[in-house]
Formats: sequence, C-alpha cells, structure tokens
Amino acid sequence: MKYSKLFGKTLKETPKDASLDSHKLLYQAGFIRESTAGRYYLLPLGLRVHQRMQTIIKEEMDRAGAQEMITPVLHPLPLWQETNRDKATGFGLLKITDRRDNAFVLGGTAEEMIIDVVRKFQISYKDLPFNVYQFSLKFRDELRARGGLLRLREFVMKDGYSFHVSEDDFKKEYQNMWDTYKRIYDRMELDTIVVAADNGDIGGDYAHEFQVITDAGEDTIFYVPSKDLYFNKEIAPTQAPSFDQTGEKKQPMQEVLGKGIIGVQALADYLHIPVEVTTKTILFETEKGEVIAAALRGEYDIDETKLKRIVGAQSLTLITPEKIKELTGAEVGYAGIINLPKSVRIVMDDSMKGRINFEMGANKTDHHNINVNFGTDLEEPEKFYDFKETKAGDLYPETGEKYEVFKGVEVGNIFQLGYHYSKKMEDAIFIDESGQEKPYYMGCYGIGLARTLATIVEVSHDERGIIWPESVAPYQVYLVSIRANDRADEVYKQLQDAGVAVLYDERDDVSPGAKFADADLIGIPVRLVVSPKTGEQVEWKNRAEKDSEIITFAEVLKRLKK
Amino acid sequence: MKYSKLFGKTLKETPKDASLDSHKLLYQAGFIRESTAGRYYLLPLGLRVHQRMQTIIKEEMDRAGAQEMITPVLHPLPLWQETNRDKATGFGLLKITDRRDNAFVLGGTAEEMIIDVVRKFQISYKDLPFNVYQFSLKFRDELRARGGLLRLREFVMKDGYSFHVSEDDFKKEYQNMWDTYKRIYDRMELDTIVVAADNGDIGGDYAHEFQVITDAGEDTIFYVPSKDLYFNKEIAPTQAPSFDQTGEKKQPMQEVLGKGIIGVQALADYLHIPVEVTTKTILFETEKGEVIAAALRGEYDIDETKLKRIVGAQSLTLITPEKIKELTGAEVGYAGIINLPKSVRIVMDDSMKGRINFEMGANKTDHHNINVNFGTDLEEPEKFYDFKETKAGDLYPETGEKYEVFKGVEVGNIFQLGYHYSKKMEDAIFIDESGQEKPYYMGCYGIGLARTLATIVEVSHDERGIIWPESVAPYQVYLVSIRANDRADEVYKQLQDAGVAVLYDERDDVSPGAKFADADLIGIPVRLVVSPKTGEQVEWKNRAEKDSEIITFAEVLKRLKK
Repeated sequence: MKYSKLFGKTLKETPKDASLDSHKLLYQAGFIRESTAGRYYLLPLGLRVHQRMQTIIKEEMDRAGAQEMITPVLHPLPLWQETNRDKATGFGLLKITDRRDNAFVLGGTAEEMIIDVVRKFQISYKDLPFNVYQFSLKFRDELRARGGLLRLREFVMKDGYSFHVSEDDFKKEYQNMWDTYKRIYDRMELDTIVVAADNGDIGGDYAHEFQVITDAGEDTIFYVPSKDLYFNKEIAPTQAPSFDQTGEKKQPMQEVLGKGIIGVQALADYLHIPVEVTTKTILFETEKGEVIAAALRGEYDIDETKLKRIVGAQSLTLITPEKIKELTGAEVGYAGIINLPKSVRIVMDDSMKGRINFEMGANKTDHHNINVNFGTDLEEPEKFYDFKETKAGDLYPETGEKYEVFKGVEVGNIFQLGYHYSKKMEDAIFIDESGQEKPYYMGCYGIGLARTLATIVEVSHDERGIIWPESVAPYQVYLVSIRANDRADEVYKQLQDAGVAVLYDERDDVSPGAKFADADLIGIPVRLVVSPKTGEQVEWKNRAEKDSEIITFAEVLKRLKK
Repeated sequence: MKYSKLFGKTLKETPKDASLDSHKLLYQAGFIRESTAGRYYLLPLGLRVHQRMQTIIKEEMDRAGAQEMITPVLHPLPLWQETNRDKATGFGLLKITDRRDNAFVLGGTAEEMIIDVVRKFQISYKDLPFNVYQFSLKFRDELRARGGLLRLREFVMKDGYSFHVSEDDFKKEYQNMWDTYKRIYDRMELDTIVVAADNGDIGGDYAHEFQVITDAGEDTIFYVPSKDLYFNKEIAPTQAPSFDQTGEKKQPMQEVLGKGIIGVQALADYLHIPVEVTTKTILFETEKGEVIAAALRGEYDIDETKLKRIVGAQSLTLITPEKIKELTGAEVGYAGIINLPKSVRIVMDDSMKGRINFEMGANKTDHHNINVNFGTDLEEPEKFYDFKETKAGDLYPETGEKYEVFKGVEVGNIFQLGYHYSKKMEDAIFIDESGQEKPYYMGCYGIGLARTLATIVEVSHDERGIIWPESVAPYQVYLVSIRANDRADEVYKQLQDAGVAVLYDERDDVSPGAKFADADLIGIPVRLVVSPKTGEQVEWKNRAEKDSEIITFAEVLKRLKK
C-alpha cells in the first residue's frame, strides 16, 4: 500500500476532550474516526488490526474445538421475555418495532438466540458437548461513552456458548476456554490476569474476567499476593482492618442530638468520635417485598451485588422516606437497628464485629445513640456478613493480608451459566442416555475486539506513538523512501513479491523527519529506510528500539520471515 | 471436522411453505435456520461458504485498488435527512431512538456515512480517486420475505464507494468495478449477465446489475440478441408491436355507453373491439402539484420509473377521485384526453401512435368515445414517449426486433452517482489544483453475500442436493468411512496434515447409503470413501459426476492440490 493512496492520514491534533492515550493515538495515526459518541468508523489501518485480532481469536477458538456460526443481530423480543432479560438494565437494551409490528431487541449478548437455534434441533447426549461462537455486532445503549474504543455502544464481540450434559463436563470446557483465552492474549502480547467477577446481567453463579492492568481501566482489581488470586472489586471478599480500641472500656449507651448532620465524617466530627465507630444502617426492599436493614461501619459503602447474594434477592430498592418513617418512627438519616419491627430482616457486615462504644442512628428524628455495645444494647448476631464495597486498605479475610489494588480493563470474560437459561427457556433440553429430557448445563465466553485493540494501545505506546505487537500490526513494514528513488520502488516491489505486508511512504512532498514521525505514530513494528546513502542496502529499525542498522536486503527478508 | 460433532445436521423434511430450491436444500443440508422471516442463522456449514465468498470478494476488491474499512450500522438520522433519503420508501428503513433521544437509521446503504467520514478529512485532488468498501450488515424492512436467503431483511453487503475529480475519472473506475465483479462471479462459477437498470433509492443517472438467469429470480430481463444488450424490465425501452388495421377506414367519433365495465379486456369485449384499440388514461400529480395525464394502449401498464424521468418528477401519486371529477367532470374510470383543462400536461405513449378508430374515455361518467382519430378528434402530439411497462412480445425500439425475456436474480450492482450526494451534503468537496472547493463525482458498488450464496444453490444443484463450486464449498472433501476403520481415521489425519479441509463422516450408527445421501445433499465437491474393500486405496467421486474410481492416496493429494 502506498501511503499517498491510503484512506485515513495522520494528524497532529487530538480529538477535543480526548483523555485516553488510545483515543488520541488511534485518532492521530488515522485508525479511527468517531461517528457519534460510542460508535466509530474503523479506517483501513484500524480495520486491518481488528481483522488480525479476529483471525487470532478464530484460530484459537477453532483449535479449542469450537464452531463458528452467526445469528441475526435483531433478536425477537419474545426470546428476551422468556428469560426476563428484556427488563435487565445493565445492557441499555435498544428495542425496535418493524412495520409489521414485530418487536426486536438489538442484541447485547446472544444466549437466547443461540438456545433458540439449538432447540430447533432435537439434540441428544451424543451431540454434547459443543461450543458455538460468532463474531457479531453487539449494541449497548451505555449512558456514558468514554471516547475512543474502550467503551463503545456498538462493537464486534466474539461470543461463544457451550452446552453440556453435566457440570463436570462443563468444567472441562471452562478450563479449555480459560487456556484458549490465555493463548489468544499471549499471541496479542497482552499480559492478562484472570479475575474472579460477578455474572451481572448474563446470569449464572461464577465468572472470570481477563483483565489488563492499566490506569486507563475502569475496573478495580484486588490482588492477594500469597494466594496469587485476583478479584474484581464488585465481588472481592473483604475484611475491614480492625479499629484499635485497646484500653477503652464499655460505656453506657447515650442518646444525643445530631440534627441536620449529613455524612458520616461530618457526624464523627460533630460528635468528636472516630469515623470507625460510626454506623450506617440502610433499609432496602427486595422484589418480594421483604425489608432488609443492612448495617456496616460508617466509612464503608454497601456493595449491592454482594448484599443481593446474601439475602437471596434479584433486586434491592431503597425504601421510600414514608416507609422509613413508618418502620423506624424517624425521618431519613436516623435509622439504626435497635428496636426495629420484627418484620425487618437485619444483616450486619463484619466491619461491625468487635467494636465497642459505637454510634448508631436512634430511630428518632435528629437523634443518634453513642456508646452502643453488643450484649448490653443490642444482640450480637450469630453471623456477620461481608456486603461492603471493598476498598484500598482492606484485608483478604482468609489470610488477613492487605490487598494490592490495581486498575484494569476487562478484555474478555468467561461465565458459568449452569441451568440459568436452560431452566427458564422452553425446550432447552437434550435427550439423555435413558431417553429422558433434561436441561443442559451451559457456559458462555466473550471477547470485545475493539476494546482489546484500544487496550493494546494503552499498554504499548510511547510519547511518539503506538508500538504494535507484530501479531496484530496493520502492516509488517513501514518502508520510507528518502528522496524519490527507484531503489525504494524496487524494494517495495520485492517485499510485496515476498508476501510481506508493506506500507510504503513514497510521498515526495514530505520531509524525511515528517515521514519518520508518521512511522513512529502509526507504530508498525519495522521501519525500513531506502535513501541515496543506503546504496544497495537498507536501514532497519525496530519501532520499539532506538537504534537502527544498515543491512542487506537478503538479511531484511530473513528477519521478516523468521 | 467430524460429522458427528458438527453443529447443524441434515434433515429429510423441508421447511413448511418453502418453495425455492435454495431454501429447501440449505435447510435440509444444515446450512441455515430461520430466526424470524427474512432473518437467518448461518450454521457452521453456511457460514463457511459465506466466509469463502467474502474472501473472494475481498481479494478482488483489494486487487482492484479498493480499501476496506467499516462504518457503524446505526447511522445518525440527521445524515439521512441531509439527502432526504430518510423518506425513501424502497428500503423500508428501520429507525430507532436511544435513551438520550438520539435518532438513528439502521443502515440500508451507507453513502451518507461514507461521505460523513470522508468530509472529516480535508481531501484534495491528490487524494483522488479512491474507493473504500466494507462488509457490513444491512437492514431492509421488506414487506415480503421470500423464504431462504434470496430476499432478506438483514444481511451482509459488500458496499463500495468511489470518489473522483471528474466524470471521466469515474468512468475508469466504473469499468474497473465492472471487470472486478466479473472476476468475482467467475471465481464463484456463477454465470452473470450485466443488465442496465434503474438507480432507484440509491440515486444517480445510470446503473448496471449483475444478474444470474434463473426462474427463481424476481427480476424480468429483456435481451436484445443483435446488440447483446440486457435491460431490467423497469427501464427496458420498448415499442409495442403495431396493431394491424390494414384496410380499415377512419370512422367518425361516437360516444357510447359503457357503465360499470371494469378492465380494458371487459371493455373491449363489451364494445366488440380489439383490446389493442382501447386506451388507458391515468392522471397523476407530481410532488410539485403538476397534473399529468398519461395515455397508452389499453393492454399496457404504466412504468412509473420511466414516466417520472419523462416528466422530471421525483414522485407521482394517483390523483384523488374528487380531483378527477373536478378535472374531467366524470367519475373514476371514464377519463380521456379530449377536452382536458389546459393546466393538465398530456403525455402519450408510443403505443398510441399509428392507431385509427381507437377507444378512449369520454370524460363523462359511464361513457366512452369510440372511433377516435388523431387529426380529426384530437391533436397528434409532436412527440410520443415510452412509459409503458415492457412485456414479453415487445420490440426493442432501435432495431425493431423482439426481446428475449428471462427471469434473473440480481447478485450485485454498480451505480453511477455523479453529484447526486455531493451536491446535497455539506462539505462533500475536495480542493482542486487551483485551490477551489469542488464537489466530487461518485460511484457505488454493492454485492449481497447471502443472496449470491442462495443463487449459487439455485443454479447448481440436482435432485439429490447441492453441488458447490470448489471455490466456495464449505469443505474440499467429504470423507466417508464404511464400517469404523483405522484406515479412514488415518486418511482423515493425513488430509488434515496436508492442509485439506475435510468433513469426516465417521458415524458408526448410520448406513453407508445414508452417508452417501448426506454427502450428496451437502454437496461438497469431492467424496472419498474408505472401506474394507478399498484397502490401501481410496474411492474418489466428484459430486457433479456419476462414476467413482479407486485411486491411490498420493493421487488424491495430487488432484486436491492441483
């Protein structure tokens, strides 16, 4: 490809408001352009990288025994209604009705679609296990796009779905996909860590994310060094560092005024107590109408994902001020767990454990209790739970060691689904050896290609531009001619004849310096220069290295073919 | 791939109401399943064919100098409003609004999107010409789907767009794409004819369709043997065979009763005159409010595409019965062109020419005139036009020879767009050599992949199943083992090692006859059989031929590698 003919040239300017390096560099280097927020054009250079990534993923998925197919992206709405996912909010589902009044969802993931095609076949235990996958457009009506490709509203996802006779059989495939993902990211030269995560709107009991550590990430990851274990913040089990009250003696409980104080820190200041002895009590209602009072140490927030699992709820909503008044007798802001009606289920976080003389809302408008103690003022629960949002400084409960904390980008995920879908959808069954109909056991596996592409740029660039790994680079070689010369044209032709993918910068109205700057910005792994000075030889420079060398063309070919 | 592991097995049944061979065979052979009407799953076998077709198209487009990129499929509605195409009805545009109230169109074609990305760059004459293309999902809310892949509501299209400094430069690319399409279809072993066609909702002045002749087609094609020219019915110039009135003498015009007679044939019978002397007069209103009275020989229908061009209208609507009454003084059904108000523009089709003693509505309810003659009863127009729907039996005006008529499937098209878009959209310009801004001259080029796939099946099958051309077959070889045997496993492994794509039918609970039937149904070009009888050799049979032969494995490899 001659650079002068390439559609999508480099620019000095960065997009307005761009904050992410990948966004700036992919824009400047001519890989992407925004259509509307979260929807991007992939220009020829960008698409070439995307396609090479797709090829790597396909090769490894095929090698793992999975089979590629494809579903429509307009999913019939009734399918999503079968699993109740039409009401899931996390995806920001886009719905559309055609002129014959058929309603569709623009696919966010395709569990229902794949099950719908599988149930068109009468499958038996002999057909299991199998794993089918696709590269297809996914739509997420995200409230917020980030700029660049890290969080898109429309993107190609590799999504795979596996079907099994049993959990044991599934576990083998889960490991198989885990290993496959590792190979995929290794081939892309991406260091990934495998992080235990929540299943979210996908459903199922457990899941793992492949995360790349970078400050550009939106996920917070907690690491246990002694166990080499990673948790996504949303499910990291946590123990609050204990608050030292050595030497303190239990005091009698006392009701004090604290009118209009907002926030635990303000309350602690006002009452002249450490924030660690304040208490937050939050009242929720489950989808079944049960009221939950959840209490935890004041400086923590509630992790609703954890709390839902503990109380076995599908959803939790904060109860209304009217209902708070009815249950506690007080306005919002003064709830505590002493003297709540018996109908309220009380759960306490383990950050409550071991404290003495703590504060708590008095269930009386404008009033707080201080010097509250288990045993004397309220019963110590049989069991404390962990439903706090994990934060830096927290301990891993099992070993008591302090977590290390990173930011990461989730580039892929694998989910156990179990019977989550097959028990909800009709005919999601196979015939077992005894001729009985049984639901199948499932897993699913996703990789977002554009986000992974941007992540590669986040972790592989310098101040001059992108540094593409060879395996996904848009071209193998960036060939520069200094002063238009026949020798450069000849090298271009010879490289093409040898099957080398070359971007040939033959512009005659651009300085060598500008060409080198473009080469660095675009980030193709090898830069070759042919100039009057190089004679019959060629200058070779790796993008990631500083020095260049003059070598023979034969040596160039040898290195490129290695 | 082992057949027992393949997702998507063969079936004896055909889909309910399937009438097209491609629909039946692709379903039975396990290539496709319907999601909802017009939206299909491509199962692993189907997707493999689709991908091989995509590779052929990509290779030829790249060879022709075009560059692949990709646009989002949700197109911002304001872009379609710039060109007024949001109101085009032909596509059945689907529109959607996200939760931030941004409106989008689900892309039908991508002219506006491509121009929108091009105008983000300041391009000059030096950047021109270029041709960018994509493989992307297209959505058409068709009122009617046909079953199978011939007319889909969601499908992958290769759509390309070229940009030029001038019409002359464009013409070279038009020819380049014409030749490229020929190469693409040749590689797919599809015989195509190139048919002059209407630009329809795409816009522009001329276009050609690549059509495959088959009775499964929905298009009617008119062929001029002496000129080797093909026209789509919608734009075929036509001349009605003249009606022989030799010996007849002009008669005086006479008004006759003809109450409640519906249709020209009924009228002809009722009046005891040949249908060829009846006249249809239809009144339309243009988008500018001009009223057109179009008259033609009774047995013809009006081709609105032709008529629009003749009168220079964007749209034509039949005028209301009230307006007919106002203009003609009569109820609907009795309009003629004698004594119409001067404000009505009269156009006559050349089928009117040369007739004497013809019939025409009398502009009086329940009445017709017979024995109407030019000169005496109405003025003969200076010019007759051709705005009739071409039909079998018609003549090519230039040579007067009778058309040959076929049915065809349009598998691709190329369009001159000229300035159609660049004059409507802001900043659709380039900087010319003198530094002036100028609109660019455009063309566009489309291929629907799934329809082409189905067309291959329509023209390449027999009563036993599909016969895939080698270039797009899902596998090169269908290997059958007769009675499970190690030798077959070995041949499977050796073929794989040699890089041959093999579908291995190793099922041990299926008869040889059933395996052969599946091989024929699926239609892979070469069937190999390894049985106790073949010993160290292998039975080779081409799908398209009747006889098999026993050859050595070395010979198998030699033939496959040829």
